[in-house]
Amino acid sequence: MLFFGGDYNPEQWPQEVWAEDVALMRQAGVTMVSLGVFAWSHLEPEEGRFTFDWLDRIMDLLHDGGIKVALATPTASPPPWFTLAHPEGLPVTADGVRLTHGSRDTYCVSAPAYRAAARRIAAELAGRYARHPALALWHVHNEYGTDCRCDLTAEAFRSWLRKKHGDLDALNESWTTAFWSQRYSDWAQIMPPRATQYLPNPAHVLDFRRFLSDELLGAFTEQRDLLRAASPVVPITTNFVQGGWVSVDHARWASEVDVVAVDHYPAAAGIEGEAETAFGGDLARGWAGGEWLLMETAPNLIYTPGRMHAKEPGRLTRHSLNYVARGSRGAMYFQWRQPRGGAELFHSALVPHAGPDSPVFREAVGLGRALKALAPHAGGTVEARVAVGWDAPSWWALQGGGLPAADIDYPAAVQQAHRALYRAGVATDFVFPGREGFGAGLTAYRIVVLPHLFLISDESAAALREFVAGGGHLVVGHLSGIADPAGRIRLGGYPGAFRDVLGVRVVEWRPLAPGTTIALDNGDQGVRWSERVETAGAETVVGYAGDVLAGAPAITRNRFGKGVAWYVSPGLDDDALRRLLERVAAEAGVTPVLPGLPPGVEAVRQGDLVFLFNHGGTPGMVPLPGPGSNAVTGRAVTGPVTVQPGGVLVWRPA
Amino acid sequence: MLFFGGDYNPEQWPQEVWAEDVALMRQAGVTMVSLGVFAWSHLEPEEGRFTFDWLDRIMDLLHDGGIKVALATPTASPPPWFTLAHPEGLPVTADGVRLTHGSRDTYCVSAPAYRAAARRIAAELAGRYARHPALALWHVHNEYGTDCRCDLTAEAFRSWLRKKHGDLDALNESWTTAFWSQRYSDWAQIMPPRATQYLPNPAHVLDFRRFLSDELLGAFTEQRDLLRAASPVVPITTNFVQGGWVSVDHARWASEVDVVAVDHYPAAAGIEGEAETAFGGDLARGWAGGEWLLMETAPNLIYTPGRMHAKEPGRLTRHSLNYVARGSRGAMYFQWRQPRGGAELFHSALVPHAGPDSPVFREAVGLGRALKALAPHAGGTVEARVAVGWDAPSWWALQGGGLPAADIDYPAAVQQAHRALYRAGVATDFVFPGREGFGAGLTAYRIVVLPHLFLISDESAAALREFVAGGGHLVVGHLSGIADPAGRIRLGGYPGAFRDVLGVRVVEWRPLAPGTTIALDNGDQGVRWSERVETAGAETVVGYAGDVLAGAPAITRNRFGKGVAWYVSPGLDDDALRRLLERVAAEAGVTPVLPGLPPGVEAVRQGDLVFLFNHGGTPGMVPLPGPGSNAVTGRAVTGPVTVQPGGVLVWRPA
Amino acid sequence: MLFFGGDYNPEQWPQEVWAEDVALMRQAGVTMVSLGVFAWSHLEPEEGRFTFDWLDRIMDLLHDGGIKVALATPTASPPPWFTLAHPEGLPVTADGVRLTHGSRDTYCVSAPAYRAAARRIAAELAGRYARHPALALWHVHNEYGTDCRCDLTAEAFRSWLRKKHGDLDALNESWTTAFWSQRYSDWAQIMPPRATQYLPNPAHVLDFRRFLSDELLGAFTEQRDLLRAASPVVPITTNFVQGGWVSVDHARWASEVDVVAVDHYPAAAGIEGEAETAFGGDLARGWAGGEWLLMETAPNLIYTPGRMHAKEPGRLTRHSLNYVARGSRGAMYFQWRQPRGGAELFHSALVPHAGPDSPVFREAVGLGRALKALAPHAGGTVEARVAVGWDAPSWWALQGGGLPAADIDYPAAVQQAHRALYRAGVATDFVFPGREGFGAGLTAYRIVVLPHLFLISDESAAALREFVAGGGHLVVGHLSGIADPAGRIRLGGYPGAFRDVLGVRVVEWRPLAPGTTIALDNGDQGVRWSERVETAGAETVVGYAGDVLAGAPAITRNRFGKGVAWYVSPGLDDDALRRLLERVAAEAGVTPVLPGLPPGVEAVRQGDLVFLFNHGGTPGMVPLPGPGSNAVTGRAVTGPVTVQPGGVLVWRPA
Repeated sequence: MLFFGGDYNPEQWPQEVWAEDVALMRQAGVTMVSLGVFAWSHLEPEEGRFTFDWLDRIMDLLHDGGIKVALATPTASPPPWFTLAHPEGLPVTADGVRLTHGSRDTYCVSAPAYRAAARRIAAELAGRYARHPALALWHVHNEYGTDCRCDLTAEAFRSWLRKKHGDLDALNESWTTAFWSQRYSDWAQIMPPRATQYLPNPAHVLDFRRFLSDELLGAFTEQRDLLRAASPVVPITTNFVQGGWVSVDHARWASEVDVVAVDHYPAAAGIEGEAETAFGGDLARGWAGGEWLLMETAPNLIYTPGRMHAKEPGRLTRHSLNYVARGSRGAMYFQWRQPRGGAELFHSALVPHAGPDSPVFREAVGLGRALKALAPHAGGTVEARVAVGWDAPSWWALQGGGLPAADIDYPAAVQQAHRALYRAGVATDFVFPGREGFGAGLTAYRIVVLPHLFLISDESAAALREFVAGGGHLVVGHLSGIADPAGRIRLGGYPGAFRDVLGVRVVEWRPLAPGTTIALDNGDQGVRWSERVETAGAETVVGYAGDVLAGAPAITRNRFGKGVAWYVSPGLDDDALRRLLERVAAEAGVTPVLPGLPPGVEAVRQGDLVFLFNHGGTPGMVPLPGPGSNAVTGRAVTGPVTVQPGGVLVWRPA
Repeated sequence: MLFFGGDYNPEQWPQEVWAEDVALMRQAGVTMVSLGVFAWSHLEPEEGRFTFDWLDRIMDLLHDGGIKVALATPTASPPPWFTLAHPEGLPVTADGVRLTHGSRDTYCVSAPAYRAAARRIAAELAGRYARHPALALWHVHNEYGTDCRCDLTAEAFRSWLRKKHGDLDALNESWTTAFWSQRYSDWAQIMPPRATQYLPNPAHVLDFRRFLSDELLGAFTEQRDLLRAASPVVPITTNFVQGGWVSVDHARWASEVDVVAVDHYPAAAGIEGEAETAFGGDLARGWAGGEWLLMETAPNLIYTPGRMHAKEPGRLTRHSLNYVARGSRGAMYFQWRQPRGGAELFHSALVPHAGPDSPVFREAVGLGRALKALAPHAGGTVEARVAVGWDAPSWWALQGGGLPAADIDYPAAVQQAHRALYRAGVATDFVFPGREGFGAGLTAYRIVVLPHLFLISDESAAALREFVAGGGHLVVGHLSGIADPAGRIRLGGYPGAFRDVLGVRVVEWRPLAPGTTIALDNGDQGVRWSERVETAGAETVVGYAGDVLAGAPAITRNRFGKGVAWYVSPGLDDDALRRLLERVAAEAGVTPVLPGLPPGVEAVRQGDLVFLFNHGGTPGMVPLPGPGSNAVTGRAVTGPVTVQPGGVLVWRPA
Repeated sequence: MLFFGGDYNPEQWPQEVWAEDVALMRQAGVTMVSLGVFAWSHLEPEEGRFTFDWLDRIMDLLHDGGIKVALATPTASPPPWFTLAHPEGLPVTADGVRLTHGSRDTYCVSAPAYRAAARRIAAELAGRYARHPALALWHVHNEYGTDCRCDLTAEAFRSWLRKKHGDLDALNESWTTAFWSQRYSDWAQIMPPRATQYLPNPAHVLDFRRFLSDELLGAFTEQRDLLRAASPVVPITTNFVQGGWVSVDHARWASEVDVVAVDHYPAAAGIEGEAETAFGGDLARGWAGGEWLLMETAPNLIYTPGRMHAKEPGRLTRHSLNYVARGSRGAMYFQWRQPRGGAELFHSALVPHAGPDSPVFREAVGLGRALKALAPHAGGTVEARVAVGWDAPSWWALQGGGLPAADIDYPAAVQQAHRALYRAGVATDFVFPGREGFGAGLTAYRIVVLPHLFLISDESAAALREFVAGGGHLVVGHLSGIADPAGRIRLGGYPGAFRDVLGVRVVEWRPLAPGTTIALDNGDQGVRWSERVETAGAETVVGYAGDVLAGAPAITRNRFGKGVAWYVSPGLDDDALRRLLERVAAEAGVTPVLPGLPPGVEAVRQGDLVFLFNHGGTPGMVPLPGPGSNAVTGRAVTGPVTVQPGGVLVWRPA
């Protein structure tokens, strides 16, 4: 089965709407809904008093309608009574402001009172619904990612630091506290990062984010274990969310969930949104190591900063099937029915304010039909011979204030590398240099690309060296391999971790002024960044041609063992990066998913299936490898086939 | 009499300056000054010790000079002693920061200590000056509009909510607290909006602003009642100020003052400032339902954000007479004499730092003379057959963070509608759908225009329906009629409140990306906003011609009863909106104030008088309806007459 | 000897690095290092327990290597133990947030606990190292400039105010507290400027900044006196830093240090950085009244906001010798060795992450050699006949929120005047109208230029009048002479302090809208600012030609006594200002350092030496006054001589 549905909040509606909801869900082919995500104040209106009758009714109603439930624990938003009963359970900002209820996610994950209240409501739900026939999945919490700097957090942080560093000398060394007289002589002196006079210690900030990730994980696992005990066979998940403020290392969390569930909201209104969708799908598959589940996306809106853009007709379908093509076990949305009020009353829904007589609901009905038809054939493996590196701590390390350039943008750099491969038509995976088993996993790939991989351990650096020595192709961009996992620079010339395998040594960074470029000797322009590179064995493939760097190496290629290691010193525009990676792919014998695609048409192979997406405005003629059929309609399709503008065709070989 | 004068602060100057002031006032023809607006620390230097001798002297001096006094209660700025004696009377921000003295307006209006101190000083003034012969007007406080989030405010807010909602169930329903688990189970859980984790509940914020408006009104009325008791015949006012942060619903306050007094500071340095002046004057007249008083404007400066622009010669006169033309009983300024120090030492004055030997003072002398000449003829009615809707709560509702577009700008939308009519030369009123008597008042108009009227009650929507059914012309813009007064969406398709009268149904909003436009099939461009509109009876007058909306309705016209209802789905530029409203006006039989005006010349009719303003750079030839005279000079004027660039001519029929 | 070296932090490195450091220092010709600047937590790891052994060892090691030490007291960064022991010693923001450790500079200078701890560690250092043979200089603290608004600060502020104003009446008068009801009736009511409702009182803010300057100075002098007592012959300094947030009046501090030490970081990445370097050097020499010491600059980086730009080859040398040419006794850097971690791990160093095999270290070696060769000849006087006024309190006064234009930029205005003279090739000093002896010092000059000298005392204004009467040439720009030292406007027309000497009267300011200009009748354009000027004796040299000012005076010239006083009403671009000042110089008989220099070449005369800098991209042929030699190489050089692009030549007459 492919899941199709979304967040459903019957508690926002009178009961007469519930019946209509179930009828519309059946009409749309909904197979599962997420229930109770923010229902704490309806389930426990006063501390210790529980009101499950309404949830009983809707669970039964859904079951009667043949609809499964991903039942949430509502712990992401404690009710107002929690604030008054346990003020120490509210989060405190770096400025010392204790937040209050009135929004969501307002709790301190290190506060015992919060943790106890969360366990209690989770246990009540587990006890009551563990055996309910509609229950298909436990959905713990929502988008873990809060932050607190209170004294309870300080205590928890110190415990975590003791475990990690052992003694204060090791911590002082790891954090380079010799700088600016920050040496700690007592554990009690260590605080979460709080308002201070000037730049904070970056290692302090980095360890705090790691601590938060582990602390939040602890909150998840204690709920998970309690649910598992109540219903050993029901899978358990929590929905991952991404953002610069989210201190969760999803690559490490992935092994703790039964299903990797991902919320993904592409932010580009135009055609760039398609590459973002592909990025989100591939990254999620990387975390999962295979199948995953799109738990939330916006049915018909793209949220760019400050604006909600309506999707064009067909785009909901195209986006949804793209996630499915890249390994999602279906497509779930935030949300089923658009609310009348509340903070997100304009957020997207399958049933909008206008009601089911609306373009979005009509498109959803067609999509539900397509997913039903695809379900028997879906589930094959998405194979890729190229992998891009992703590392949450490197992102965190590149968010500080004392960096060489304030506009260093970790996710943008990784997305650009992925986009270049996407535009080259090459299937791409992600690998996680900070995760156990990283080295062993490299054997699956011919090419590894590392953009802005600022932090790397000795072990992972060695694994990459071995990968190249064994015949792999490595592409390292600037700001990679610079520091150890504590953020301490690897001395002697950048990129310290990769100097030998790359055969280069960088002696000076020269970030470019905003709006300026630097000429390269192949006619391209370097953007954002340049460096003084010295080769030490590598050949110069492209040189700088302008500024004081004229004649110096820009892009180098080094034979190392049986493989090749490239260093890309300047920033490149999308087109130049695509051409470079196409050359690397050709050398490595990596080919596109489907050669000869017309512009705007994307192909994704999943097992036997080939998903064809036409994101362009003109019909696209696609050659096919042989006879087959349209996996949705069942009709025979032998290539070349025309994919209509804005359309999708899922092809299945005969 | 037309009032002419401004804020006068003799307490800032040694007594030798006072005599010069009175002499200069007489030279300029000043008829009234606002006294004591920020004089609390000079009137009550220590708690309970009063020093009125200086005020006695200046009141007498002014009276001797024939100058009337608008005597202020100084309660907008408690003295420093108040802070130390009553720290709980200082305001607290949403972040929990308790502000301190050192500026102005630093008090919590819900603090009993503040209210008691304010009543005490007001009572002292009332007792002492109620019968002073110079007293012409009580000027309570200054620009009500402060905000506080302290615990005393929380208590007052809860009382207000209990009165409004009755019980918690009703409040929970009104605020849609089912969203994000915000259901309140005890009144004590309700706080003013304070720092929280993420987006606040918009209904919570909206009710808080309504509460603040009422709470501030309570502070006003208790002073008013006390002054009234002391001097039953002296009119009482407070000066209204506008701004996005001001939680005062002036349309509702207007019935509580004897004279609507308005502070108006146009912010556009260029010619757009003229339309802004007209807007301010018409809105003030709307609040007042007739005559009002310009209590403050800047004599010779335009304050744009971050810059003070000096007005061109003649512009002080033109602006001042424009307010008078639109119903002001004169022109008062902030301020009489520019101070030597203090936070606003560069703000504009009739007597600037340079002294009376200055362009501004010389222009003021001429203006005083003109006002004196006009006074016998002024006071007629400004008649308009077109009204634009204004609704402070709709503004507040459109200031939140979860809206479809972050740049939705309520006052800009209303000002644009007014400006289009202004440029069409059509006299325009304002109506207030949130005010009692709204429906009855509509009978005066042929056309009602509703930009961004986001919130509307069932009653007001019905009144508008009746208005159209009876033969009126209604023009509804996007984002109008969307929600009920609690901010809950009217479901089934936008704009829920007006679907039937408009004969349309909007199923999807498509805000435009910044800097982009969407083609319309009449050659115009939609700006900022577009929508998927379905007609249900209406005819399509203009269609969308670009993007995925090509061919869909953009501007529609619906016959409803004896009238016509237009829906304007896209944003329009000024010129397109003017042309559209000209067409509506023509259909409705509404004509300009004076047809055939040359570019840059504006005409306002007040009773018999016609005010002609030439804002352009070339002489303007104006046809006149018959023989008459210049109301200032008394000289005979029969049309066509030439109005000089930058000049004003007030014409009076023979 | 010319000092060459930088901040050295051996506490950040294992001891094996120390030996390499000393060897590299010897290789580079380093003569002095700043030691211990942020070493408090290494010197006093727990309160009252001292660990000096490591410092003993490195002092000895440096001494053995022939390297002198500027030994710092580490009081700019209290260790973490200080926070827990003395929470009241941490600074509090205007919002009431008490900052915590985790960065640097986190202390309240008014807290007795901080002052006692600072004196204790300083006394320990003094006792131990006063007679150490490596000790060449005491380097107290680092970059004084912190700010605190706590209650202890409030007490200290009140004491300072009592001394300054005597009684509350005087304070109320000085602060114009009559504005907005701010009259104080008890000293206890006076707070540091804290979060308040709206604009603060500018005189309050200004006095607070003066207080902070004095309070910080008290912290310096008590350490200085204690060090002096321990080692009467060792000179004592503290390094001055500048910035809009720094409340230190360096012109007044200069007399309290034995050597004026300056940290200077030009912020312009391009050629403008050269003028900035010259400005920094000349201003430092002005503070010192002669020789000074560049204590910190960035060896190979330019920090523009948000970006670190690497210097071009040769620029480190050119910048360094430019400071030397302008009176610095050498060139010291932040820092010797780039750290592996900490908040500033990417800041510039002589030994970068790449190690000594790097362009920056190689350039440093050459520079060390040049400085050694120059040392016997350096130390002559830099003579200038032109002076520009600098006044920290005027800067502070122009940082407020109620000014006529939000983009008034005091340092930019002063830098522009200096830059115009720099581009004219004219040697320039600075004078300080707020410093004792200002008037007497004017006799050295032919021309005084006053940009944005907003505040001026009657005494200093009289001294300038006398300067002109005696034959001097005065150039006054807009926003000069406006107010008395309390910030109270000098009434009757701007610029009140200079109306008589200038023979003009300004009756209206007309700041220009951003991006607009106003035509002048000599073909130039006024930028940023215009005014309505009336002459009263002066001749109009340039008139306004556009806007409503057409025909009015813009630039005027007034004979006054034996001298001439110019008024420059509009803002000018660099080129127009340079041409104007060239005319003034010609009239005053002031000539360039060296006439006939090719573009891009700069000349500085220091005693007999002429420093020639070629900042351009082409060789520059320079005429020389006679036979001589290259002071670095000793080779004979007789003009004309060619200075290579990017090169420096120090010429010494035979």
